[in-house]
Amino acid sequence: MKLNVEPLRGFRDIIGSEALYLETVTKKSEELARRWGFDRIFLPTVERFELFSLKSGEEIRRTMFVFKDKAKREVTLRPEATASVVRAYLNKMRGLPKPIKVFSIVNVFRYDEPQFARYREFYQADFEVLGSPSPLADAELITMLYEFYSELDLPFKVIVGSVKLLREILSKEGIEGDDQDHAMHLIDKGLLRELEDFLREKAKEPERAIEVIETLIGIEGGVEAIREGLEVAKEYGVSEAKDLEEVASYLPDDVLKKCVFKVGFARGLAYYTGLIYEVKVEDFPVSVAGGGRYDALSEIYGGERLPATGFAIGLDRTALALEKYGKDVKWKREVAVIPLAPEVAKTALEVQRKLARLGLHSTLLDDFKSLKKALSYVSEKDFKWVVIIGKKDYEEGMVTIKNMETRRQSKCPLDGLLDCLLATL
Amino acid sequence: MKLNVEPLRGFRDIIGSEALYLETVTKKSEELARRWGFDRIFLPTVERFELFSLKSGEEIRRTMFVFKDKAKREVTLRPEATASVVRAYLNKMRGLPKPIKVFSIVNVFRYDEPQFARYREFYQADFEVLGSPSPLADAELITMLYEFYSELDLPFKVIVGSVKLLREILSKEGIEGDDQDHAMHLIDKGLLRELEDFLREKAKEPERAIEVIETLIGIEGGVEAIREGLEVAKEYGVSEAKDLEEVASYLPDDVLKKCVFKVGFARGLAYYTGLIYEVKVEDFPVSVAGGGRYDALSEIYGGERLPATGFAIGLDRTALALEKYGKDVKWKREVAVIPLAPEVAKTALEVQRKLARLGLHSTLLDDFKSLKKALSYVSEKDFKWVVIIGKKDYEEGMVTIKNMETRRQSKCPLDGLLDCLLATL
Repeated sequence: MKLNVEPLRGFRDIIGSEALYLETVTKKSEELARRWGFDRIFLPTVERFELFSLKSGEEIRRTMFVFKDKAKREVTLRPEATASVVRAYLNKMRGLPKPIKVFSIVNVFRYDEPQFARYREFYQADFEVLGSPSPLADAELITMLYEFYSELDLPFKVIVGSVKLLREILSKEGIEGDDQDHAMHLIDKGLLRELEDFLREKAKEPERAIEVIETLIGIEGGVEAIREGLEVAKEYGVSEAKDLEEVASYLPDDVLKKCVFKVGFARGLAYYTGLIYEVKVEDFPVSVAGGGRYDALSEIYGGERLPATGFAIGLDRTALALEKYGKDVKWKREVAVIPLAPEVAKTALEVQRKLARLGLHSTLLDDFKSLKKALSYVSEKDFKWVVIIGKKDYEEGMVTIKNMETRRQSKCPLDGLLDCLLATL
Repeated sequence: MKLNVEPLRGFRDIIGSEALYLETVTKKSEELARRWGFDRIFLPTVERFELFSLKSGEEIRRTMFVFKDKAKREVTLRPEATASVVRAYLNKMRGLPKPIKVFSIVNVFRYDEPQFARYREFYQADFEVLGSPSPLADAELITMLYEFYSELDLPFKVIVGSVKLLREILSKEGIEGDDQDHAMHLIDKGLLRELEDFLREKAKEPERAIEVIETLIGIEGGVEAIREGLEVAKEYGVSEAKDLEEVASYLPDDVLKKCVFKVGFARGLAYYTGLIYEVKVEDFPVSVAGGGRYDALSEIYGGERLPATGFAIGLDRTALALEKYGKDVKWKREVAVIPLAPEVAKTALEVQRKLARLGLHSTLLDDFKSLKKALSYVSEKDFKWVVIIGKKDYEEGMVTIKNMETRRQSKCPLDGLLDCLLATL
């Protein structure tokens, strides 16, 4: 039997430097969580279909992995984390002091056409603040994203908007519920022709609505863009975007400079109720992170009102962006232990264990290669030192140490190994 | 609409101290990988059904999450990681210098009756050594498990055996292929009555086979148990357990003392070809880690022969064992920043950012609680310091710092914050 050894379409075996980039970005997100006080949680990968069909938006609904489990329940591989966080809040976190700041690393799934930076399984670091109605929480989250991408040294912008103005206008036009979500979806996808047709069919005053919405979509820039947008909206007769102004007033100046405000902004998730934002890396085709406020999701699930806001970092996408910009990441490798014969194996294992206990990034070559092959393995893998244990040396209680960078080599007693390593620095 | 907010049966929302235990164990496994030279890889959660149906064993086959994707492919949520690692080797790692040491953190799935320490989704840290035929690799892996569980300070034993003797006996009795795997499965499950019936039906000399197998199953102990088992087997006419003796000869003495050798040992996975082992924590109902050698799996998948060996740490189970033994784990929380009014929000966010940049585990209370409520939040969450920023203080460029342990409190200038923090130590 010959098995197809490729992963399923849209899935990936991530190894080598690709894995190292992804691991690096993942660890950085964990560090971000720790430094900003977000507690780790772990959520189920499989959820009920209704959890996402209710309010995640039509694009996500269309691309979900849905299947029936053995009990004939319609279940799905989670397409994103926020819905699960709110469900878990209602299940287990209601009694906790607020704000609740939680963080998780999740693999998420979309059954879509695979393309660059879009896979059927991908990784996200999800950050959520539950129970804080203040725009300061949103400003905090945007600042965290700024810190994260600044430290990665990528050229980026944060696009910041609010769904409030657009939703207010649509409501005024009598477009509510699923229809409103659909209009937002069309705006998100940039499908303006379809939007116009839809508004002509559904809106009370289609031409006025089209004009104001398309004008708003066109407005973007620094803080002044917020005021400009608000004026356009006011002229039309709505004025709900105080949140944008307030968030902008809280942001540190350097963060503010990286923000592009867009009053007519929409994102793919239907549960957003206010501020939304995305991080875009220059010349990178998809956004690398995104988030927003979703104050109504808990109520939609039958719970109490829960002001909430959060973002997800696209870990794969961020890793790809790092790679694209040639940012250097390296495995840290220090010592390779090379036993040359089974007779010295036990000692070699003891040496390896000692190095590992000291926290050195070490490895044992456990297949008794010839010295030549072992050294070529070690060079290829970029180790800094080798400890060579030969049979004759071993009988005399000695080992050979070699610094692979300086090529300095010396014999030293087994029990003075570490001092020897340091001496070859 | 009222959504069912509980996770699906057998799935879990892991929060609070449960999450902290799991995170702690996960990080420890990552550290183990780094120190012993295992490179991180990421593998797909969804795989073709055949990958596991071929050789993972009947228990796993029976409990897999199998479903049809939109292209009508029969796919499955991975029940374990080793099969995927070998597939990924054949797909992408063939050209790498050997031994290849890889590590991954995986969520895996079994559709079984949920019970204590058995869930439908659980977490594993998977370590594999590909390309090394030497028992030194097995000894290394057992030593790593010893280091891991010793550092966690749990009372444990490593049960070490080899499937070689049992498989040799079954082969001699004319029991091969799926029948042999089934017999091993019955031994693993301790179903001796069923085993006897099965042997009476299939074996050439059933009574002799039953006697030798049941004798071997009964032998366990220190290194002497290996010799004892080998003698029993030799009398019957097989002698294939050199691997056990060799591994034992390589193990450091303290590791050896924690090992219980069991020549008639079997494990649930059908792909094992030699040494197998499990870590058992005292008074804990299930094994917390397990592994073994699987030299034939690559060939079964249509690849070349690939000597390979590895283990998986059950991260949830290990976390549960830590909890059971009352091992203390704690969120590290240092500073909470408390802005008392929107007017000071921007400054508070700047302060929080400064603390985070220094690597402090800090958090911003972003909902402008009253001071009383804020302090009760902070005590509950166990922060060490608070930085209180009130409106009046702020106008004078001052903040208040309080050490929550010593209750010492002092006013200090905004730009001398860190020195102030240190002074309240």
